[in-house]
Amino acid sequence: MKNIRTGEILCVGTELLVGQIVNTNASWLAGRLALLGISSYYQTVVGDNPERILEAMRQASKRSDLIVVTGGLGPTSDDLTMSIAAKLVNRDLVLHQPSRDAITEIFRRMGRVDSDITENNWKQAMMPEQAHIMPNGNGTAPGAILEYEVEGHPVTMILLPGPPSEMQPMFIEQAEPWLAEHIPTYFKHLFVRMIGIGESKAETLLIDLIRKQGNPTLAPYASEGEVMFRISQLFEKSLEASGIEQPDLTGELLKQVRNIIGDEHIYEVGNRKMPEVVRDLLIKNKKTISFAESCTAGLLSSALVDYAGASEVFRGSIIAYDNSVKENILSVPAGILNTEGAVSEACAIAMAQGCRNVMKSDLAVAVTGIAGPDGGTPDKPVGLVWLAVAREDGVETRKLTLSGNRGRIRHVSVLQALDLVRRQLL
Amino acid sequence: MKNIRTGEILCVGTELLVGQIVNTNASWLAGRLALLGISSYYQTVVGDNPERILEAMRQASKRSDLIVVTGGLGPTSDDLTMSIAAKLVNRDLVLHQPSRDAITEIFRRMGRVDSDITENNWKQAMMPEQAHIMPNGNGTAPGAILEYEVEGHPVTMILLPGPPSEMQPMFIEQAEPWLAEHIPTYFKHLFVRMIGIGESKAETLLIDLIRKQGNPTLAPYASEGEVMFRISQLFEKSLEASGIEQPDLTGELLKQVRNIIGDEHIYEVGNRKMPEVVRDLLIKNKKTISFAESCTAGLLSSALVDYAGASEVFRGSIIAYDNSVKENILSVPAGILNTEGAVSEACAIAMAQGCRNVMKSDLAVAVTGIAGPDGGTPDKPVGLVWLAVAREDGVETRKLTLSGNRGRIRHVSVLQALDLVRRQLL
Repeated sequence: MKNIRTGEILCVGTELLVGQIVNTNASWLAGRLALLGISSYYQTVVGDNPERILEAMRQASKRSDLIVVTGGLGPTSDDLTMSIAAKLVNRDLVLHQPSRDAITEIFRRMGRVDSDITENNWKQAMMPEQAHIMPNGNGTAPGAILEYEVEGHPVTMILLPGPPSEMQPMFIEQAEPWLAEHIPTYFKHLFVRMIGIGESKAETLLIDLIRKQGNPTLAPYASEGEVMFRISQLFEKSLEASGIEQPDLTGELLKQVRNIIGDEHIYEVGNRKMPEVVRDLLIKNKKTISFAESCTAGLLSSALVDYAGASEVFRGSIIAYDNSVKENILSVPAGILNTEGAVSEACAIAMAQGCRNVMKSDLAVAVTGIAGPDGGTPDKPVGLVWLAVAREDGVETRKLTLSGNRGRIRHVSVLQALDLVRRQLL
Repeated sequence: MKNIRTGEILCVGTELLVGQIVNTNASWLAGRLALLGISSYYQTVVGDNPERILEAMRQASKRSDLIVVTGGLGPTSDDLTMSIAAKLVNRDLVLHQPSRDAITEIFRRMGRVDSDITENNWKQAMMPEQAHIMPNGNGTAPGAILEYEVEGHPVTMILLPGPPSEMQPMFIEQAEPWLAEHIPTYFKHLFVRMIGIGESKAETLLIDLIRKQGNPTLAPYASEGEVMFRISQLFEKSLEASGIEQPDLTGELLKQVRNIIGDEHIYEVGNRKMPEVVRDLLIKNKKTISFAESCTAGLLSSALVDYAGASEVFRGSIIAYDNSVKENILSVPAGILNTEGAVSEACAIAMAQGCRNVMKSDLAVAVTGIAGPDGGTPDKPVGLVWLAVAREDGVETRKLTLSGNRGRIRHVSVLQALDLVRRQLL
């Protein structure tokens, strides 16, 4: 059993150095390493340059137990990573016949003949001796795991293709199981997703549990537009092997978090995002839904439809950006628009009820607000948003006072509207 | 005049190392450096650790003319970047009174009193001697530019705050003008944005112009879901100062690109994205628009509304996800839905015309297609999308056969629908 405690990430690609693409591989891999309990202290990006790649690999080998390298495994002459890794560890590149067969098979499936395959393509089947090869189910370049020593220090290098659609499945399906066998510990994680409570407020409420830092631990987990906490318990394989019981204490800690935060603010313990939770609740309750959107202008509908399976429950929406649409299609009384205005509780209610009538859905949700940057007044500032949800037996509203730019106001409005639906269905 | 030819980027922050946030700063800065004509060979990420930050700065100083550092300028005890930079160059931190005044002013504006300001806050006004200070218009941490020598090699370090909303304006408004004064060359860039032609096809057509690599140059420029090329001409300040004429040849090269690609495929030479181009054309032509969306389910509407100014031209939309909505609100004849189906030219036409009628807009665009992953048939595979645009004097359609996943099919459908509108308005 190895003792891989520290790791670092090395991304190879000139397209990263000139800013053509954002390095999502580094953050994704960093997140996976953190979940495995591997500490990482460095991320490095170098271009398709043999000296700089070799030097970066050499440096990383001196300071980390694990190096995860992405990019530079393709068929072009710029793709140097595998041959430089072989050079680093003083091993020859040898033909890996299964990889060669896989390349032939991919070309045949594309309707090409063997003579279409160039020397460069075959290069991708040349792998360092004694490497553990990872076949690529989503492209032509296989990955590899190399084990070597630098000055008595055992190092593992995992080489992965650059495109995320090839890299991520290869890491999850092949590298992680390999790592799991070579790490003396493993973790159980619970992701606790919250809504209706700010991150700093949640952190203040949970500070005693966070500071305790026993096993399991509780920690905030950053996620765009969401408040999320992670409960993580470490298990030792050696204890397991010796028959020493390590009781799962994550559920107990979750219960404490629930007691403090309040059950209604926790919408998911797991991996589903808010639109998926709402979709599943609608399916379970056999309810259909429709939306009347003003300032969000399609974002709310789109959030639900982003995930497959929406067609079972989603009828459609009216985007009533102009007041004439609120009046003509959603039957919002002109009196409400003239006296209370389009951004008002009365208008949100009328929009939701009007939407439910024309869409013939069980539920209808309305969103009307001022996303800015213009259009705010002292009475109705930028960030004021009214939500309403209409059901057969009544209507419920929620007032939001949001800060931030146009994009954030629209994004948070969508999350809050979905949460309003969620609470109706609980 | 300095000769800054090479640069690298150093990002400081433990949140990057654990994958909590994606390092958009590195790619954004890399892109800006490339536009300035500065070559970069490295990007590095380290955590909030004094030894590792110092070592990374030292290493970068040996190999690059310019180091752009982001992060670690905040008020907490984890924010070490400025003091370590001072240590690197052997200079003391001294009080920068204008920065201290600015911090006081920010707290007053937040309704706080001076005694609320802690020692940590004041720390942000302590800057290395002889630094060029860059005030922060969007936060409390000022930036700095340091000039120093390492083994006779002149180095410039630009220190910027981590949050992109503070970093980007500081770089554009203060660091770039400073750099422009210290670089012997400058560039003129034209961004040529294309639609209706694949990137590899465009590259094949333009290959002779790309390979020529004179001055100006032509090169593909990666951009999510868009085909873009960059025309760049280098100008020498020394020639300018000597009165030697350097004629602007970018227009001539653009003309050649236009001749080869075809004018109708170039929707913008500049910075506007497709929704902005369409919005501006609608405003100029005094036309209103509405959308009837099925598979895109609000993405098209939302793309237009993402940019301020849409309310002048956008009436609203019908998201007709379920066929009952197509029939009841958009008045698509049941006969069309039963015989030709919802994903058909006839249905797209009926949706567009029905939308134009109920929304009372000058133009109406319909999108109906199969985004997958399910719902495809041999006749109507996943990726089949019909678009229609209805005007007072008629209707035009476009058939798309798209590849890729659900997200890509919906995204490309939106771009193509906007392009259809654009061509109507030219």
